[in-house]
Amino acid sequence: MLKEEDNKLKRTFKFKDFQEAFAFMTRVAFLAEAKNHHPDWSNSYDTVEIELTSHDAGNKVTKKDHDLANAIDKIIL
Amino acid sequence: MLKEEDNKLKRTFKFKDFQEAFAFMTRVAFLAEAKNHHPDWSNSYDTVEIELTSHDAGNKVTKKDHDLANAIDKIIL
Repeated sequence: MLKEEDNKLKRTFKFKDFQEAFAFMTRVAFLAEAKNHHPDWSNSYDTVEIELTSHDAGNKVTKKDHDLANAIDKIIL
Repeated sequence: MLKEEDNKLKRTFKFKDFQEAFAFMTRVAFLAEAKNHHPDWSNSYDTVEIELTSHDAGNKVTKKDHDLANAIDKIIL
């Protein structure tokens, strides 16, 4: 579950290795593109950090962020 | 060309949109996996920031970083 903090929804995901981490990122990328709402995110080897905020709403958490967060959470169930 | 700064090779890449940015990241991901040397990187929509350093050499820039940097530079020629 992504947690709200500083007007962002945030979560750090850990995987087995880089391949697993990047496979997850690829699935998130397709979701983000389909929803036309994109994460701010970083990756280092097995770790992916995601932050969601709505830049076009003045960097606040909106329904778009919650929708994408819910879809991301479903990937890793 | 990635530039050396603070014991890292760094560069910010700008693309047309998220699809182009993530397509580039996918190519870098395959290179990184093939070389077993992975970037620390972040993405926000059309922008990708890459930092390369050798964690296993005490966070210094090594030949592995230069090799990956050169391969990344060739992607976007």
